[in-house]
Amino acid sequence: MQAKGEAKFINGVNIDQLFSTLDLIKQNPDIAKFKFRAVNQWISGTHCQATVRDFYGALKEDTSRQPAVFHMDEPPVLLGNSQGTNPVEYLLVALSGCLTTSLVAHASAKGIKIRGVQSRYEGDIDLRGFLGLSEEVPVGYQEIRVFFTVDADVSDQEKEEMVKMAQKYSPVFNTITKSAPVSVRLEK
Amino acid sequence: MQAKGEAKFINGVNIDQLFSTLDLIKQNPDIAKFKFRAVNQWISGTHCQATVRDFYGALKEDTSRQPAVFHMDEPPVLLGNSQGTNPVEYLLVALSGCLTTSLVAHASAKGIKIRGVQSRYEGDIDLRGFLGLSEEVPVGYQEIRVFFTVDADVSDQEKEEMVKMAQKYSPVFNTITKSAPVSVRLEK
Repeated sequence: MQAKGEAKFINGVNIDQLFSTLDLIKQNPDIAKFKFRAVNQWISGTHCQATVRDFYGALKEDTSRQPAVFHMDEPPVLLGNSQGTNPVEYLLVALSGCLTTSLVAHASAKGIKIRGVQSRYEGDIDLRGFLGLSEEVPVGYQEIRVFFTVDADVSDQEKEEMVKMAQKYSPVFNTITKSAPVSVRLEK
Repeated sequence: MQAKGEAKFINGVNIDQLFSTLDLIKQNPDIAKFKFRAVNQWISGTHCQATVRDFYGALKEDTSRQPAVFHMDEPPVLLGNSQGTNPVEYLLVALSGCLTTSLVAHASAKGIKIRGVQSRYEGDIDLRGFLGLSEEVPVGYQEIRVFFTVDADVSDQEKEEMVKMAQKYSPVFNTITKSAPVSVRLEK
């Protein structure tokens, strides 16, 4: 038996806040409009660093977080010195976090208690695209494969449903599988 | 005047290695086939961590790198505790690193010396998609805007060309703008 006030967290997700946020957005859809940002500074060769700090959302600028810095570099076989994980690997990191968060958030909203979620990612790239050696092979990922393991007291069918919800509602999954327009401009 | 052997690095990119790699791939295209990987472990609520280590490429497994661990979490307004940058921000990090590396590598191959490259990224997401409040708004990024600053002794037209090459050859840019298939399976 749970004391009053304890039941609002499921899997570490504040369900009360989740449902009150949904109500607020239904009243004012602009609350749901977010702008996320990053800046990048080239260092040398294939080594650069990105910084993430502020964002816009829930009708205001948020500058409360400390800057987070991410170094990126290629391994020696790709002309770098491994001074960071490479950009295409960061894409898999992003996909993994988004599918996991989406799975947990939607399962929590349904009241399903989860003990563990693991997933692994593998994506194929033919670097003849990047190197300009072939116009036929895709420059981006040709295919990405994801495998989830979910530990919860629910049937396999319900776990399959959770994995479907993760895909349906994940922004990174949908950006990759449905594409998004990216405008790139030179500032003079 | 440069001493013999010094000219092979431009902007920190080993041009000799770049061109010898191109020759090897022309002889055996399988050298260009890479598989990149990540694993993800859910922690609690919107907090999870991804680990990147091994990859396959140039005809062999590479396990030489130390594991790199990335924490992801949402800010309080999105039900988290900011114990990491969020997944959709990681996507911008990935895009920033890939466009920058692509720009520098292709400019270096052409012999263009660069002093500096900065870029900034902003992407719009309407979270009614993630929250299941609207079937009409895209779940993923609606639009991503990128602004580059390039410091090099070339004309604005040549800088514009560098920014175009960055887009043409960046795997992350092409994955996002042209989409890629992602298969997600439950392991039982």
